[in-house]
Amino acid sequence: MEGSDKHKVVRRGFIGGAIVAGLTMRADALAALPERPHEQGAVLRPYGMPSPYEKDVGRVAVKLNADTDTGLTAWDFTPLQDLHGTITPNGLFFERNHGGVPNIDPAQHRLLVHGMVDNSRVFTMEDLRRYPPVTVVHFLECSGNGLTEWAKPTGKTVQITHGLLSCAEWTGVKVSTLLSDLGVKSGASWVLAEGADAALMDRSIPLEKMMDDALLVYSQNGEALRPEQGYPLRLLLPGFEGNMNIKWLRRLKVGREPFYTREETSKYTDLMPSGEARMFTFVMEAKSVITQPSGGMQILTKGERPISGVAWSGRGAIRRVEVSTDAGKTWNAAQLVAPVQSKALTRFVYPWKWNGEEAVLQSRCYDETGYVQPTLAELVKVRGLASVYHLNSIQSWHVASDGMVSNVHA
Amino acid sequence: MEGSDKHKVVRRGFIGGAIVAGLTMRADALAALPERPHEQGAVLRPYGMPSPYEKDVGRVAVKLNADTDTGLTAWDFTPLQDLHGTITPNGLFFERNHGGVPNIDPAQHRLLVHGMVDNSRVFTMEDLRRYPPVTVVHFLECSGNGLTEWAKPTGKTVQITHGLLSCAEWTGVKVSTLLSDLGVKSGASWVLAEGADAALMDRSIPLEKMMDDALLVYSQNGEALRPEQGYPLRLLLPGFEGNMNIKWLRRLKVGREPFYTREETSKYTDLMPSGEARMFTFVMEAKSVITQPSGGMQILTKGERPISGVAWSGRGAIRRVEVSTDAGKTWNAAQLVAPVQSKALTRFVYPWKWNGEEAVLQSRCYDETGYVQPTLAELVKVRGLASVYHLNSIQSWHVASDGMVSNVHA
Repeated sequence: MEGSDKHKVVRRGFIGGAIVAGLTMRADALAALPERPHEQGAVLRPYGMPSPYEKDVGRVAVKLNADTDTGLTAWDFTPLQDLHGTITPNGLFFERNHGGVPNIDPAQHRLLVHGMVDNSRVFTMEDLRRYPPVTVVHFLECSGNGLTEWAKPTGKTVQITHGLLSCAEWTGVKVSTLLSDLGVKSGASWVLAEGADAALMDRSIPLEKMMDDALLVYSQNGEALRPEQGYPLRLLLPGFEGNMNIKWLRRLKVGREPFYTREETSKYTDLMPSGEARMFTFVMEAKSVITQPSGGMQILTKGERPISGVAWSGRGAIRRVEVSTDAGKTWNAAQLVAPVQSKALTRFVYPWKWNGEEAVLQSRCYDETGYVQPTLAELVKVRGLASVYHLNSIQSWHVASDGMVSNVHA
Repeated sequence: MEGSDKHKVVRRGFIGGAIVAGLTMRADALAALPERPHEQGAVLRPYGMPSPYEKDVGRVAVKLNADTDTGLTAWDFTPLQDLHGTITPNGLFFERNHGGVPNIDPAQHRLLVHGMVDNSRVFTMEDLRRYPPVTVVHFLECSGNGLTEWAKPTGKTVQITHGLLSCAEWTGVKVSTLLSDLGVKSGASWVLAEGADAALMDRSIPLEKMMDDALLVYSQNGEALRPEQGYPLRLLLPGFEGNMNIKWLRRLKVGREPFYTREETSKYTDLMPSGEARMFTFVMEAKSVITQPSGGMQILTKGERPISGVAWSGRGAIRRVEVSTDAGKTWNAAQLVAPVQSKALTRFVYPWKWNGEEAVLQSRCYDETGYVQPTLAELVKVRGLASVYHLNSIQSWHVASDGMVSNVHA
């Protein structure tokens, strides 16, 4: 039995969890159960919601800077510690915006595709539905995921250290299908993507990516996109940093060069120890984290206690995940949950018995390119401490002798 | 462009959908778009909801018998016509109950496992979390799905004809792990599963199934089970009829023979033409249906109009889906969306151009056992018309020359 910071469960009742030997009479056996139920229960809603007992499971909003916060941008973290499997339910999918969540009428929404194409065109949502739908499962991660963790362990829970990460089944239309239809002019090599939010969020995308696996997405986990995910239309760039997956997508402009928007010059660059800033660091490198147990939880009893977490890579499929319970001295292979999909969250499970002593839990992953998730020391050696984005190093959770789990650098 | 009964979309605006040739000046091109957005938008909720523009997308409750309905049981159908991909969002997952939806405190919930086991035991939810978690994707279908459709086409939409069908990613513990832990006595071959709803819904399950792929599930699509799906614990029997996947699971009793509960003697049997009732017809046979376009929609323009739908089999993976647009005279292979998983919904897509003439759209599927989805005539020839459950025949949608789509027997 375990407890988290939210739900510290104390065993109660006279028989819970105990072995009841030799119960043979029906009446005796049933006495172990709560009273026979008689509540007829609630009428079902057309659109359902979680149990009231799950009310503490929610996204957490973090203020970027309490002094200057206007309430008009947001950063909302997914409660990874409460999730299982690989799909993030839409209600808990992480969210980042620069200018609020617009309330767009899909019948009025338009997508303009122009620039270096033979035929510019304005698409309605219904026009897009006439292309063959494509369905894929991919993660999304904000490149700022973990930005508080470079110099010292700061986030108390995995929701704060890693919660700008989610995964969904997406349906939409291949960008390559549209662009091929319109005809791309010779010499074109970049595409500007622009959102219909108040910030007009925009980024330059390599044409090569657009012609590869980029999608115009209108559905997430079976239903229409949620407003905070770009309803009615977003760009999906599998494996690329979250902010490039432009939400509320209203414009694609094909060009010869990058467009050098504010979001790729003053923001979303990586400052190197040399003082130079790396631009266009698109791909989210392989990364993994243990979500159960994780920071803020307390393990209350010794014995069987499976370790579980997620791994992902912007370069393809995860090939292997290893778990260490001794701060990286020894590593053992975890089991991966099938199907292991490219650029998607992959759940791993590792059997563990807690012996009541201190431990440091870590996971590291390998992707299909052979890349191995680095330690924090290895990453800092290359990147220094002036970086903000693209922290993908190994996370360490310290288990104290009282079972308390906390974020450490180890 | 198309419309459904809910959303008949009329193209408006001066430029929507048209080819805009030769737009070279930025100002001209942008004139095609709605006014520059300036709304800062709403504050995000910890648990998000769909766009207000999607308010008509919901489960539909059908009264079993208007004269005797007490409001204490329910049948709520998934809006398949509005969904994409293969995952059904939890808020729209179909639901059937016999005695309402109990509001169970997971800290108080217990699972008793007793009968022909070496050690009876009462499990808390936390006890179950100490077993290694298993994650799988599987469909659930009510054996009564389509029961109105035997004699004549009745349901106006695919939500009514096929909406007692959904698919999710489930996480839980293998029943075989628990039973092996407790020790099953020699001679045992059936297990009674009982729910903690007011109806104490119960069914007999072959021990062989329990030791194969049966799961005790606590998570659906990443988060905790929803109340109407059995929160905090349900049985999952991949490929078996929905009602056997006992919700609010509180008891498993291992025995030698079936327990002959009301739900397998007076209900959930299949009346054959001979007058005999088949009992224990567990497996949902292979079935498919076109969801877009489907009954109640109207196709408003000729030309490209992809056909899309879902296929599934309780016996394993779907191997092939074919589509006919001429009432079964000719068939062509549809494309299946990867990964095709065993006992899971499989999305298929078939490119189609509507020429403005009448058509009858059908799909048929083949599963890995070689089974082919039958026509209604083939099924009725064997089963007669006295049956209620297990209708898995080919669905026909008639497209009229005005584009209206309706349910027909063809």
